Amino acid sequence: MRLRSAEAKAGRLRDPAMQERVERIVAAAKPYTSRGSPASYIPALAAADPRLLGMSVLTVTGERYGAGDNRHPFTMQSISKVFALACVLRHRGEKSVFARVDREPSGDPFYSLVLLEGENGRPRNPMINAGAIVISSLLPGRSTAAKFRTYTRFLRTVSPDGAVRLDRTVYGSEFRTGQRNRALANLMGHFGTIDGPPDSAVDAYFRQCSVLTTCDDLARLGAFLADHGVDPLTRTRIVSPTQCRSINALMATCGLYDESGEFAARVGLPGKSGVGGGILAIVPGRMSIAVFGPALDPRGSSVAGFRVLELFAAELGLSLYG
Amino acid sequence: MRLRSAEAKAGRLRDPAMQERVERIVAAAKPYTSRGSPASYIPALAAADPRLLGMSVLTVTGERYGAGDNRHPFTMQSISKVFALACVLRHRGEKSVFARVDREPSGDPFYSLVLLEGENGRPRNPMINAGAIVISSLLPGRSTAAKFRTYTRFLRTVSPDGAVRLDRTVYGSEFRTGQRNRALANLMGHFGTIDGPPDSAVDAYFRQCSVLTTCDDLARLGAFLADHGVDPLTRTRIVSPTQCRSINALMATCGLYDESGEFAARVGLPGKSGVGGGILAIVPGRMSIAVFGPALDPRGSSVAGFRVLELFAAELGLSLYG
Amino acid sequence: MRLRSAEAKAGRLRDPAMQERVERIVAAAKPYTSRGSPASYIPALAAADPRLLGMSVLTVTGERYGAGDNRHPFTMQSISKVFALACVLRHRGEKSVFARVDREPSGDPFYSLVLLEGENGRPRNPMINAGAIVISSLLPGRSTAAKFRTYTRFLRTVSPDGAVRLDRTVYGSEFRTGQRNRALANLMGHFGTIDGPPDSAVDAYFRQCSVLTTCDDLARLGAFLADHGVDPLTRTRIVSPTQCRSINALMATCGLYDESGEFAARVGLPGKSGVGGGILAIVPGRMSIAVFGPALDPRGSSVAGFRVLELFAAELGLSLYG
Amino acid sequence: MRLRSAEAKAGRLRDPAMQERVERIVAAAKPYTSRGSPASYIPALAAADPRLLGMSVLTVTGERYGAGDNRHPFTMQSISKVFALACVLRHRGEKSVFARVDREPSGDPFYSLVLLEGENGRPRNPMINAGAIVISSLLPGRSTAAKFRTYTRFLRTVSPDGAVRLDRTVYGSEFRTGQRNRALANLMGHFGTIDGPPDSAVDAYFRQCSVLTTCDDLARLGAFLADHGVDPLTRTRIVSPTQCRSINALMATCGLYDESGEFAARVGLPGKSGVGGGILAIVPGRMSIAVFGPALDPRGSSVAGFRVLELFAAELGLSLYG
Repeated sequence: MRLRSAEAKAGRLRDPAMQERVERIVAAAKPYTSRGSPASYIPALAAADPRLLGMSVLTVTGERYGAGDNRHPFTMQSISKVFALACVLRHRGEKSVFARVDREPSGDPFYSLVLLEGENGRPRNPMINAGAIVISSLLPGRSTAAKFRTYTRFLRTVSPDGAVRLDRTVYGSEFRTGQRNRALANLMGHFGTIDGPPDSAVDAYFRQCSVLTTCDDLARLGAFLADHGVDPLTRTRIVSPTQCRSINALMATCGLYDESGEFAARVGLPGKSGVGGGILAIVPGRMSIAVFGPALDPRGSSVAGFRVLELFAAELGLSLYG
Repeated sequence: MRLRSAEAKAGRLRDPAMQERVERIVAAAKPYTSRGSPASYIPALAAADPRLLGMSVLTVTGERYGAGDNRHPFTMQSISKVFALACVLRHRGEKSVFARVDREPSGDPFYSLVLLEGENGRPRNPMINAGAIVISSLLPGRSTAAKFRTYTRFLRTVSPDGAVRLDRTVYGSEFRTGQRNRALANLMGHFGTIDGPPDSAVDAYFRQCSVLTTCDDLARLGAFLADHGVDPLTRTRIVSPTQCRSINALMATCGLYDESGEFAARVGLPGKSGVGGGILAIVPGRMSIAVFGPALDPRGSSVAGFRVLELFAAELGLSLYG
Repeated sequence: MRLRSAEAKAGRLRDPAMQERVERIVAAAKPYTSRGSPASYIPALAAADPRLLGMSVLTVTGERYGAGDNRHPFTMQSISKVFALACVLRHRGEKSVFARVDREPSGDPFYSLVLLEGENGRPRNPMINAGAIVISSLLPGRSTAAKFRTYTRFLRTVSPDGAVRLDRTVYGSEFRTGQRNRALANLMGHFGTIDGPPDSAVDAYFRQCSVLTTCDDLARLGAFLADHGVDPLTRTRIVSPTQCRSINALMATCGLYDESGEFAARVGLPGKSGVGGGILAIVPGRMSIAVFGPALDPRGSSVAGFRVLELFAAELGLSLYG
Repeated sequence: MRLRSAEAKAGRLRDPAMQERVERIVAAAKPYTSRGSPASYIPALAAADPRLLGMSVLTVTGERYGAGDNRHPFTMQSISKVFALACVLRHRGEKSVFARVDREPSGDPFYSLVLLEGENGRPRNPMINAGAIVISSLLPGRSTAAKFRTYTRFLRTVSPDGAVRLDRTVYGSEFRTGQRNRALANLMGHFGTIDGPPDSAVDAYFRQCSVLTTCDDLARLGAFLADHGVDPLTRTRIVSPTQCRSINALMATCGLYDESGEFAARVGLPGKSGVGGGILAIVPGRMSIAVFGPALDPRGSSVAGFRVLELFAAELGLSLYG
């Protein structure tokens, strides 16, 4: 089977110097884990061990590198916004998606309703919660369950060997405490940005946020974004080159909420963080990088994970901005 | 003299296929000039011929290409924000500059006071007017005239052969109609973001906006941003590599105001537009591109200039986002 | 029985000149019915006959006057906010109520979420929707039905002879189209301003809005606000004098949303309008006035009803402001 | 001379019980002076003795009562907004004034620019700074000095025996620190709400704020608002009855900024506070009341002055709201 041999081959091509670099950088960023603390709004996230730190790299030529807690499971949280967007773009095309959600940076915290009301219910971009809930509402499927099946099927298309498991504890917590997101969804229902029942879109969103992943899995899932929309291991086209560019542009300008500008200056790559502690970063044409560290900075991104990416980008000159 | 020979040499190295491409793309985008209209808030700008369209390219290896109205003069307007920022970073360093102005995308129109008040007078970034006025207030020099001298001296350092001329008619118009910018400056004076007299900072800002340039000049002025902070023709270091990256990151995330996300998706380069009709775009490590077309879209950027950049980036695969 | 004889006596004491005045003013304001149109957001309201116009007056000495369509039924809509507030103040006292909702004018449209988010979920006053939903959440009763029973029992205490009927068509419409109000309630649930299930508070609110009334009933229900908290016909104390003053002060400063200032200048009385076309106005120490006319102005109040109140207040010198 | 005999007569008609009441209430409220502190944004105001407390009453029948520091001078500050509005209404009429400034409560702090920008430069009402600056720009007179002469002439028309003196220290401080107000004025200049030079309107506003008064003078100046627009001592008509009602309605709904609702509930009268420590309150048809106490609550009104008014209104049943 083509996939298996490609994946097997991937193992062989590793560059020892790169593996050593990845390990060294994770070790260097480790002290940063004490500079933040896990997300507190959900007990299940608050219980995470703040000292964890992991990193995985998958190049478009199939090389894999990993260090630290790169196999420790965590929930995707907002990183799922990237994959849900890709899934919806694949199914519906850019035009119909961007008619409902804009693609401009917002500069606002991820949860804000303010801009939404001022702009008649059309969210600023798919990376803030309001926009992501619209995207979830566009997942093909009538029921919440059907929408979520579309989403998990998409993940399996991208990474056929990966397991898609829901963290039921986290999902239950999200569901119980998600009143602000329900407020967003109802407001967009009012404006007609969301067609079906608002609560169903929110529920689909909570499920996709609660899917478990690891750095290894996440780098694998993001690899198509580094290769113009084609998964580099299976050579399956996931999204068109234009759609891939759109997704990366959105990650570059809005992927870390009100820390996006800081991330652009210090790392210089399309990235998306989640309050589970993960960050996915893309080096177009070269590689997909996933980091994980549950200790978050005040704006909701992994402190040490951010540092890993900064060191790695600096050492390899990866910043897109010179 | 090194410079002259470098510039002379530049002329010789031209690739005829590239020159043909530049000409073809300007011709292809020409019909877009009828899709917008010149800035109307100042008579001097409103009088511009909307059919004009020009483009210049300067590579880090010194090659120059130009087409259309690439020698037609226009005022820099907001593109001056990039050079004022570079000048102030060079003189004061990143730390002291970014203590007064943040570097996050705002998603707001360029003139807004709203975010400013909510955030105690610290503007979101140096690419919106509020932030740019702070930057102008930080130009070394006690008086408005002294600040402006610092700025023009900087431009001459970047491009020793370029002439720096003020369009007095445009400057007079800006000065007379600049009440919203004075409102911004006074509000920041109230919050202590600006130290000296607010009206002086605004005046310095109006002058830098009213400096005349052409596509050829502008591509020349922006070249150091394509070469890690070093002017590729004179090999003079203008800003540090980190400062260069910061500037490009800001252009990439906030250079076209509330059209920045659109520009990222469709062009995928750090860019900065001005209501004079110019847009400067940077391909890090490769080239600086300047376009000019006074017919603007509703958000204040050159319609046909945007199209030229989109076609050029697509044809050469220049987008940083894959 | 005291009530019956009081009510009977009321009939006898009528002043013919006053009855003539009421009839004349309703006739004079009649042409204003063509200057607006019924609320359009619910089919059941949109179908109302825009030419209807009625008025009722009940003095604290028991005199009653009526003219036009003063017995035509309409739903209370936002006027119910006044009675729900009185009911909750009666059961819980000022301190506990105003800990959850402020009593400052908002100057915003009734539906806005913006101020709510900026102020951590504590609505500005009980006359905007957000505040009214908080009040409904405070109605004693665990279930929606129990809350609504408390409310209707309160109405029967105020007006023992009045019938309390729900317009099921209007209620059904409100329930189906109430996503913006659900957004408000969920946001306040998030902030802890509402304790129980947000959707239940909204549902109780929709029911109270859908209670049918007439000008005659409404003037009767509001009479206690004209007599320092005591119903003038039964001499039952409904709320304390301080609570009565609080309610009237709120009506005077926020009773007509973003038209409250206009109403204060032109009528000069505590008032509350509803999109069903009713307006209740109070002349402290003297009388309760109810008007009804379904043709609304752009800000949601009865055009002709407003005019009736303006003429009546001018003729009798009722404005509290001189 | 009519005035002198009227004023002399006034002295004779005093009711000893009322004078005793006024003294008792000032004494009772005295401890509240320790619950606040003088305005800190101007040194000249910060130096005020926080223990001062005074009260004056002038009835429409010419009776005068005073207690405490009722002859201690203080600057009018925002209370001047009432007189400038009356002056401008007298000269230009309601229609032309309310075309430039609305009359709806804003619920915002007095200094905010936010609403202004959202509403294209038309301030919400003449009691917030933005609106007051528009009113000052409408004072007849080409220069700042001429505008201020119109204003002081108006004060002398209202109170022919009163001296109008400028506190030059306070004015100097206001002038130097007034950048936020200049921001407001420039923004309104941009929108065309203010016709002449914005800085001149602000300067006229600062001067009217810096006029010295005492409780005795202030009660005298406000008396026309208690008598339908006619000065009760000289019988001069100052404004029309409609204009008088408009002014009182504005004071009732917006006179204490974001404390207006609290004032309506606890005092129940049209009132206007200033950060100099004064509050003017009007009982339409009966009397004008002035209090003074420089210790302010966090929202900028005299703590003990507010308490004096609350006690006085409660004891005499003055609240307009029952």
